[in-house]
Amino acid sequence: MSEKLTPRHEDYSRWYNELVVRADLAEQSGVRGCMVIKPYGYAIWEKMRDYLDASFKATGHQNAYFPIFIPKSYFTKEASHVDGFAKECAVVTHYRLKNAEDGSGIVVDPEARLEEELIVRPTSETIIWDTYRRWIQSYRDLPILVNQWANVVRWEMRTRLFLRTSEFLWQEGHTAHATREEALEEARRMLEVYADFAEKVMAVPVIKGFKTANERFAGADETFCIEAMMQDGKALQAGTSHFLGQNFAKAFDVKYADKDNNMSYVWATSWGVSTRLMGALIMTHSDDSGLVLPPALAPIQVVMVPIYKNAEQYTSLVAKMNETAAALRAVGISVKIDDDDSQKPGWKFHEYELKGVPVRMVIGPKDLEKNQWEVARRDTLTKEFLPDEGIVDAVKALLDDIQQNLYNKALNLRRERTYEVNTWEEFVDVIDNKCGFALAHWDGTSETEEKIKELTKATIRCIPMDMVEEEGVDILTGKPSRGRVVFAKAY
Amino acid sequence: MSEKLTPRHEDYSRWYNELVVRADLAEQSGVRGCMVIKPYGYAIWEKMRDYLDASFKATGHQNAYFPIFIPKSYFTKEASHVDGFAKECAVVTHYRLKNAEDGSGIVVDPEARLEEELIVRPTSETIIWDTYRRWIQSYRDLPILVNQWANVVRWEMRTRLFLRTSEFLWQEGHTAHATREEALEEARRMLEVYADFAEKVMAVPVIKGFKTANERFAGADETFCIEAMMQDGKALQAGTSHFLGQNFAKAFDVKYADKDNNMSYVWATSWGVSTRLMGALIMTHSDDSGLVLPPALAPIQVVMVPIYKNAEQYTSLVAKMNETAAALRAVGISVKIDDDDSQKPGWKFHEYELKGVPVRMVIGPKDLEKNQWEVARRDTLTKEFLPDEGIVDAVKALLDDIQQNLYNKALNLRRERTYEVNTWEEFVDVIDNKCGFALAHWDGTSETEEKIKELTKATIRCIPMDMVEEEGVDILTGKPSRGRVVFAKAY
Repeated sequence: MSEKLTPRHEDYSRWYNELVVRADLAEQSGVRGCMVIKPYGYAIWEKMRDYLDASFKATGHQNAYFPIFIPKSYFTKEASHVDGFAKECAVVTHYRLKNAEDGSGIVVDPEARLEEELIVRPTSETIIWDTYRRWIQSYRDLPILVNQWANVVRWEMRTRLFLRTSEFLWQEGHTAHATREEALEEARRMLEVYADFAEKVMAVPVIKGFKTANERFAGADETFCIEAMMQDGKALQAGTSHFLGQNFAKAFDVKYADKDNNMSYVWATSWGVSTRLMGALIMTHSDDSGLVLPPALAPIQVVMVPIYKNAEQYTSLVAKMNETAAALRAVGISVKIDDDDSQKPGWKFHEYELKGVPVRMVIGPKDLEKNQWEVARRDTLTKEFLPDEGIVDAVKALLDDIQQNLYNKALNLRRERTYEVNTWEEFVDVIDNKCGFALAHWDGTSETEEKIKELTKATIRCIPMDMVEEEGVDILTGKPSRGRVVFAKAY
Repeated sequence: MSEKLTPRHEDYSRWYNELVVRADLAEQSGVRGCMVIKPYGYAIWEKMRDYLDASFKATGHQNAYFPIFIPKSYFTKEASHVDGFAKECAVVTHYRLKNAEDGSGIVVDPEARLEEELIVRPTSETIIWDTYRRWIQSYRDLPILVNQWANVVRWEMRTRLFLRTSEFLWQEGHTAHATREEALEEARRMLEVYADFAEKVMAVPVIKGFKTANERFAGADETFCIEAMMQDGKALQAGTSHFLGQNFAKAFDVKYADKDNNMSYVWATSWGVSTRLMGALIMTHSDDSGLVLPPALAPIQVVMVPIYKNAEQYTSLVAKMNETAAALRAVGISVKIDDDDSQKPGWKFHEYELKGVPVRMVIGPKDLEKNQWEVARRDTLTKEFLPDEGIVDAVKALLDDIQQNLYNKALNLRRERTYEVNTWEEFVDVIDNKCGFALAHWDGTSETEEKIKELTKATIRCIPMDMVEEEGVDILTGKPSRGRVVFAKAY
């Protein structure tokens, strides 16, 4: 049995790092800043991807694939975009290696230098809008509703598994529209898709809002976002949807002819979520015993473990487990029977707790006699005996309850750690000591926002979509404000 | 209406290039050698991926994800692998751009040179076996049955959409085993999975065989392959499965302890198919009217087109189409109703022929009265009237028939164009004039194989798994041979 995880209260960050590795989700690779996503972690990501992909298709989107390389010059076409993305990136300069003349190994062939350097995509607006120029001539070609599942690279100096890695997996939607209104509607629609996914599938409550100009995507006119609170009270941006205005259409000269043959620039959105969601999932629900997974994303929803003393007992228990597993699978529940005779039940219990399997069903000879199961739930670490009769419905209800309970728990935590503050002292207390979200008045200027960040490391996570109009004064400058925004330290 | 495709008999290669673009499958991007896979093409690839992924999982494999970058030094660890893959590749040398001092734009920051260059993966054996070293200690950790869906880059001088692009999408399975026998069995099992997929889903008959030493994967002890014949008689390698022996285990020092605590090197396989399959699919079935798709891979299996003169007719036809479409969808058939009033039926017929939709159902006011549909099949370009009663079963049977017919047609073509040859003259005639597969005796040496390639451009596609033992003499050298191998020109 492996040793215990560092408890969260002792060192939250260390707990996270240990958990990700010990629960077999991911690990560092031999390549600086790039992770290996292990099969168990990837199975969770696959479930996320499948849910999201179905939602994108249900809202009329299609998948496509664009090149991983972007010529350097493409980035310079959109002025703010280049500052945001082209600086810390992986640059391909050569296309060949050769044997060193001194026999010391293989070296870059100086003869094979590219005329123009290629950037490994940090995001694909430029290459996609270069393509859309060819796809769009008239209003008949609009809207274009395309999504891409891909890997992207942003050169990061300090990395953490899932949360910040040089390479990560994501989806990026890129849509083109005839009107400003339609593009804005699309950007908001996709934010709703993300919020729904976060709350219903990940069981992670989120605040929907707008980013301030400072925190906006480089090249966007408006960035919508969903922000979640982690167990340590810090914020994590879980998804963004950008209204790009006509910025990329102008940069790449993409115009369409309307019914009267007038030419106009096309309106754009882009939106994305990434393997960072894995970090949000882990940090929202997990505990000192390991991973806790909402049933909707658990690769194994139910694990069955037999407790026996001899081969005869083993045989009858495994037969019973197979029978019940078949009944559970028939209603769409994924079940693993761990009948491995070489490991003790205690070791198995520990292992499946670490891996966050939502429900554990244990059966021994006495239970078999009594027609019952010992059923443990991972979220509360409690257990009870349930009659074998009606077990399928009971387990189904239990999984639903766990899903809902995880959401409620996270929502309660966020409510408890969200504070309306009206003075600078209260603000600092929330950010530094209480470690939570501060709902505070802000004067609307980037200067004040930056000053507050310098003083406290807190940033404006978002201007909530449901912000109540309310007269107030900025907590730092005392200047007038019309509503409260969400401040927090963030991942 | 767009102009006709170049007919195949006029210029097969041009026909292919036009078809790929006009059927909205893919196009060249602004990045040399990299393609954009368009939504319609990607939808076909997604279906391929889903079928294959399900087969991999059914045979016990799990997905994972490994870094896109591979340190240069990793390649030098496996001697033959470096020659095969590290030469023509995309090399990342820097991790930052900066504003040029003369204000001319952005340039590579010379200060940000990587200590060790990173190669964009051309295949992942090296990075994966570097990882497996950490995963494998004892026999309990084996087998590892992992697959990855990813993009890879091989710098190609001459590219063609799907068939040969610098970046392509693929899956690569990488497995680790305790014994030679188990690894060999795995490599053969995955070849069967590929062959089954090619024949049953893609409707592409394939020959299963071994590669000669010359054509083997760089780093493999044995390469199994499936080879298909395109309509022009050339071969296309549609998938490979490699028995890697202990080569990568030795290169990356991956050993396991057996039950008696003896340490041994681990045995390996790798296997992959790529977006190249799209090229095979297109070149096997399509015709001068455009794409022809087997129903199993068609994003739209049935398209419905109404023929009408007035709004009243339109309304009743669309109502009928919706009703029948719902019935077809209920049995898992994908249906598109093209009720676009701004396009003429003739334009639509042409469009769906170009896009390879297997079945077209047309209905007009008279058909409605007579309770019938005009049903056209894309594979034979024939049409017939079918009664509305029982239409669901009839369409289902038709789709099955099209799937089978495409396979049979391709198999007949291959049979017609496969020749047993016994003399050099016959051999040259098959390769140069008849353009087909030559089943010929070969003396088993690489020298002869290379000589034949120089003289005719034909290569040994494979040594068939079902090769009949037969005494014979090499068609070039006259030296003794024990069986016939498959020679052809290849894509």
